[in-house]
Amino acid sequence: MSSVYNGNIKLSLFGESHGKAIGIVIDGLPSGIKIDDKFISSEMNRRKAKDSSISTARKEDDKPIILSGVLNKKTTGAPLAAIIENNNTRSGDYNGLRETPRPSHSDYTAMLRYKNYNDGRGGGHFSGRLTAALVFAGAVIKLALKQKYKVLVTSHIKSIHKIKDKIDCDIASLKYEDFVKNYDKPMPVFNDTSLDKMMKLIKKAKLSNDSVGGVISAYAFNMPSGFGGPYFDSIESKISSALFAIPAVKGVEFGLGFDFANYYGSECNDSFTLDKNKKDIITSSNCNGGINGGISNGMPISVNVAIKPTPSISKEQNTLNIKTKKMENLIIHGRHDPCILSRANVVVESMIALALLDTCIAMKGVL
Amino acid sequence: MSSVYNGNIKLSLFGESHGKAIGIVIDGLPSGIKIDDKFISSEMNRRKAKDSSISTARKEDDKPIILSGVLNKKTTGAPLAAIIENNNTRSGDYNGLRETPRPSHSDYTAMLRYKNYNDGRGGGHFSGRLTAALVFAGAVIKLALKQKYKVLVTSHIKSIHKIKDKIDCDIASLKYEDFVKNYDKPMPVFNDTSLDKMMKLIKKAKLSNDSVGGVISAYAFNMPSGFGGPYFDSIESKISSALFAIPAVKGVEFGLGFDFANYYGSECNDSFTLDKNKKDIITSSNCNGGINGGISNGMPISVNVAIKPTPSISKEQNTLNIKTKKMENLIIHGRHDPCILSRANVVVESMIALALLDTCIAMKGVL
Amino acid sequence: MSSVYNGNIKLSLFGESHGKAIGIVIDGLPSGIKIDDKFISSEMNRRKAKDSSISTARKEDDKPIILSGVLNKKTTGAPLAAIIENNNTRSGDYNGLRETPRPSHSDYTAMLRYKNYNDGRGGGHFSGRLTAALVFAGAVIKLALKQKYKVLVTSHIKSIHKIKDKIDCDIASLKYEDFVKNYDKPMPVFNDTSLDKMMKLIKKAKLSNDSVGGVISAYAFNMPSGFGGPYFDSIESKISSALFAIPAVKGVEFGLGFDFANYYGSECNDSFTLDKNKKDIITSSNCNGGINGGISNGMPISVNVAIKPTPSISKEQNTLNIKTKKMENLIIHGRHDPCILSRANVVVESMIALALLDTCIAMKGVL
Amino acid sequence: MSSVYNGNIKLSLFGESHGKAIGIVIDGLPSGIKIDDKFISSEMNRRKAKDSSISTARKEDDKPIILSGVLNKKTTGAPLAAIIENNNTRSGDYNGLRETPRPSHSDYTAMLRYKNYNDGRGGGHFSGRLTAALVFAGAVIKLALKQKYKVLVTSHIKSIHKIKDKIDCDIASLKYEDFVKNYDKPMPVFNDTSLDKMMKLIKKAKLSNDSVGGVISAYAFNMPSGFGGPYFDSIESKISSALFAIPAVKGVEFGLGFDFANYYGSECNDSFTLDKNKKDIITSSNCNGGINGGISNGMPISVNVAIKPTPSISKEQNTLNIKTKKMENLIIHGRHDPCILSRANVVVESMIALALLDTCIAMKGVL
Repeated sequence: MSSVYNGNIKLSLFGESHGKAIGIVIDGLPSGIKIDDKFISSEMNRRKAKDSSISTARKEDDKPIILSGVLNKKTTGAPLAAIIENNNTRSGDYNGLRETPRPSHSDYTAMLRYKNYNDGRGGGHFSGRLTAALVFAGAVIKLALKQKYKVLVTSHIKSIHKIKDKIDCDIASLKYEDFVKNYDKPMPVFNDTSLDKMMKLIKKAKLSNDSVGGVISAYAFNMPSGFGGPYFDSIESKISSALFAIPAVKGVEFGLGFDFANYYGSECNDSFTLDKNKKDIITSSNCNGGINGGISNGMPISVNVAIKPTPSISKEQNTLNIKTKKMENLIIHGRHDPCILSRANVVVESMIALALLDTCIAMKGVL
Repeated sequence: MSSVYNGNIKLSLFGESHGKAIGIVIDGLPSGIKIDDKFISSEMNRRKAKDSSISTARKEDDKPIILSGVLNKKTTGAPLAAIIENNNTRSGDYNGLRETPRPSHSDYTAMLRYKNYNDGRGGGHFSGRLTAALVFAGAVIKLALKQKYKVLVTSHIKSIHKIKDKIDCDIASLKYEDFVKNYDKPMPVFNDTSLDKMMKLIKKAKLSNDSVGGVISAYAFNMPSGFGGPYFDSIESKISSALFAIPAVKGVEFGLGFDFANYYGSECNDSFTLDKNKKDIITSSNCNGGINGGISNGMPISVNVAIKPTPSISKEQNTLNIKTKKMENLIIHGRHDPCILSRANVVVESMIALALLDTCIAMKGVL
Repeated sequence: MSSVYNGNIKLSLFGESHGKAIGIVIDGLPSGIKIDDKFISSEMNRRKAKDSSISTARKEDDKPIILSGVLNKKTTGAPLAAIIENNNTRSGDYNGLRETPRPSHSDYTAMLRYKNYNDGRGGGHFSGRLTAALVFAGAVIKLALKQKYKVLVTSHIKSIHKIKDKIDCDIASLKYEDFVKNYDKPMPVFNDTSLDKMMKLIKKAKLSNDSVGGVISAYAFNMPSGFGGPYFDSIESKISSALFAIPAVKGVEFGLGFDFANYYGSECNDSFTLDKNKKDIITSSNCNGGINGGISNGMPISVNVAIKPTPSISKEQNTLNIKTKKMENLIIHGRHDPCILSRANVVVESMIALALLDTCIAMKGVL
Repeated sequence: MSSVYNGNIKLSLFGESHGKAIGIVIDGLPSGIKIDDKFISSEMNRRKAKDSSISTARKEDDKPIILSGVLNKKTTGAPLAAIIENNNTRSGDYNGLRETPRPSHSDYTAMLRYKNYNDGRGGGHFSGRLTAALVFAGAVIKLALKQKYKVLVTSHIKSIHKIKDKIDCDIASLKYEDFVKNYDKPMPVFNDTSLDKMMKLIKKAKLSNDSVGGVISAYAFNMPSGFGGPYFDSIESKISSALFAIPAVKGVEFGLGFDFANYYGSECNDSFTLDKNKKDIITSSNCNGGINGGISNGMPISVNVAIKPTPSISKEQNTLNIKTKKMENLIIHGRHDPCILSRANVVVESMIALALLDTCIAMKGVL
């Protein structure tokens, strides 16, 4: 059981919410990747709580300190380790949680798994805070993917609660750059009316001490075709196992995913054809999300990810005190996000980028 | 890139649809597991095409020949290898497919990946036929799970196309045995009216040379609590990566999954409480499908799996001849299933059992 | 715990000495490797007992039957599985061994490890017979190494008991072809006087129902420089872990190995220089066996492997009956090799080839 | 290619000799292991240069700062990360080394492998300094091994150059505590006359700007019997691959190892017998070093490790300038050990402990 992603690229994630520092080691990176500090910092910012009306009031600098693996702003090929110090912690907020484990959170299962030796403060090693380190790793990995393979990973919020991001044009015609334009908005949503409704809904949830979830749609552009393999190393297996590493992710689908059920085979088969330049082989639709038989077919890889409502809510919940074995009313104090989707986009992208770089290295090696 | 499941249990899957034999090696099994031939054979039967009105006309004996790892009907602890010979093959059916790769199938991507050296006959190594070996392995693994940990894995068809299996009582109150009762039906569906509608729909799809998909709901009962871990070895990561090894699986969700989006946190948090005997800690709902923070909480593990419509349809499709670079009308001959869900249930269960036994061994060792 | 080699190439070894068949699955091979049956068969022959005066009287056909992964005499890129049927077994020979485990053999430890469920007949899964499957895999891997990377692996017997293979010229000036010339001899030894002495010694050992061991020296030529890595994936780590998979191997050293102790740094440092064409960088000596810092330096990789005397001897041994807890005189019947070195050369080479192909794929990918 | 040890326990090693810090993440530790600071600190001290007359003049505090995974002096079960800051670096010493790579060092191969992007200062990631992090991890792992399995790992110097540690009694009768008594000596050697000769030899080597190597003998006591497995996960495979991760290790042997060649089977077979209490099954000799068929037999595990003379010597060496392609006289400045054996003992033990804890967890799980 491990916090290590264990492919050609290996990530070793460590740290606790209220410990000295969190961090990550990235092992297996190609050498010579330019470390673009501005890009890394913009990715870190995408994960930060921007607008306290829709997110946690906890503010962290989240400044990764690179300890190794970089020289003259380029990766050396040796393991790249970085830490992020924890400054803004208020352990007091979590007093008493061990006796009354928070519903739908890892408090109870972690106690069992680690026989009460685990660090439960602020969720300990299970805290969403750890995703800051994943985003740092994801940023470095995206740089490698882009510089070595031109692969670009992005995402938008497909829906929050029952509100969908209505996109006027066909999503298939959107380009990477179109997605990037949304990064400056409070949340990465194409349709501004949808965005507005989502914001209102989240604020409402916050006011009622509640939370909401939703769906993130992510895309990888320019993935070389013929990469991947059947069965246990299918691109779907690799991406999904990385995505389910993210706390709060409860569903992953590729292309139409669960919506495939609503179509006949003849309606959702992706016929091969030539692109408009009559040169490259493409498919006329992309119901399979760029993957056939576990292998990339050259179309954008598309993945939807279900994010559950933040389980930490300040609304009163009736739950068990595991010591007294009596039911109790629990009010979770602390600073929590009523909706983590806008902060989760870049985490989702990071995990997809990880799986894709891993696939590229399997195909082409690390040299 | 590999057809090897690579955990504490290792599966090495091999074979092609039209080769001498397919097979699998199961490495890392505990010794002393009783090999119940009748159970294995019933599992193999669940995967077989039962009713030719709703499935392929290809009939295979699918009789696994165990080559090693079993002595006196018990596992020895050494690798258990088994082969299934291929008898009923008609390679002629697939002539010409290499020039006109079948839409949404692996023909095209396999050609790229293996530089035209792959065996494309009948889908080669990518054929659904390989799942027979996965089911054999799954049956052995289920025996190990049951005998060592009392864990039981089962499933039903949740929906085919737009038809849902309507269950009168709460699914939470159903037991393993209730699911098993459905195994004798043409398809494992609780509600007979739903079953009837599904059968009709599939027959209709078959008549129009088309296909349909759907959703399988699987459950694991008696999973010990406190098993698993955070991040990359979360039970969700392990199960999903095993499930996406199955051709045709395009979505995986746990508990409410994508439906989480429709709830507020306060509505879908699973509060802790005591069971009716006032002894064991359970949750009053199971929206998280038995897993918190990647670790089992003692509730049934519930997983939904989206199965796309069989891409091999006899209906005429307009697609590219990659040699002539001209569009062609393709009619796929051969014997195909208009819907593979009823045969896929046991494959889905096998992959879940694999991930769970792997988790159990990580926790408790192989001895 | 596993019989799976688990790198970019994955080998899954299975079978028991007296079971239906032994076999191996090779997963992760590049596609398009020409399968040279003659070469494979000559490699299989190198492992066979040639001269019954110096080896076991058990004769096996050892004909691998390829079940998958090859089409038109080329690897398809899908898993290559092969089995070797067991015909010439005489289980009766091993009666009673379970109560009186053979000294220095796996009988006792396997009983403990597998709780008496293991198949002990003929050594079961631990039998040297399994190395036939390793040699088959090694032959295929050597073909891949040669065709993709020009790497050639060979070996000679450096010593048997206290008799050394005296080589007139400097071993550094020997080429791959020089080693191959020895393959037709009863044992791969350069010096015919040494060979003669070794043969006599082995015959003497056989007559006295005893056994002898020795050292195999293996070389890999043309390994590209700059391949490998520091620490846990050093070429030394990879080669040694593969070599210690061979039963009877008890020591592995690179270059001077244990002999390094007899030199000052200034005597055994390998200075860099240009080759005679004044083009390529070489080292003027090769005390490090072609590896610096875990990475190939372009010189031949040289490895010595210590093989212990066959533990199965017919000479009377005084050992414990673990049931009666009394000491007993044990005479091991059956057909055993008084010295396995001449048959072990090709097994040793196979494991080295495996580690090197694995390293090459890590560097350059599988495509 | 990776600096990650990748078993049930995963180590992720990072850092460069002249970077900000080196460090390691230990993933997969059982929870509840008492962190004995005194023990860890004594292990760190064993690796330090004690006596500048026989080692480098570089002094480092080598104080590991634990960042995560420990609460109330006990492991939490979450990844334990620690860093050691680099203070005492003098990069100037290494100027010019990139053009004239040091013989038998990783300078040249690292340049090739990392395409000149590697950090070559002080050996960069390949520096022996990194072993400080391995020793920290080894200390934690030894605590886990001892507290959960009573396993104890220790070692002495068997020989330096041609001087052997003469032990009066049979090494088989020595206990763990006997070895520990040597830790306070300048070097862990039993025989004080031998120790004296070794010291003199090293001083002489130092004065002549040269270096010497030798052999370390390590032992693991109390390893439970029946642990391990055949082939690729044999205890020998696991220990050797971990040991060859140590820079300067060029040979590994178990029990008699290469010395097996000097015995007949009848002389070196380990007969089974009862211990003096007539209770436990032991072997009357331990030529196999506690391992049969890859599985522990209950006897002490014994391993010899060949350490080459430090390649960094101040003696003038004639070697190639790879830029000018001219031979040059190279004098390596900097502070180097004329013999690293006394500092390597604890590194060797750490790697053995790692492999053994990994084996224990495979057998018994992490809970």
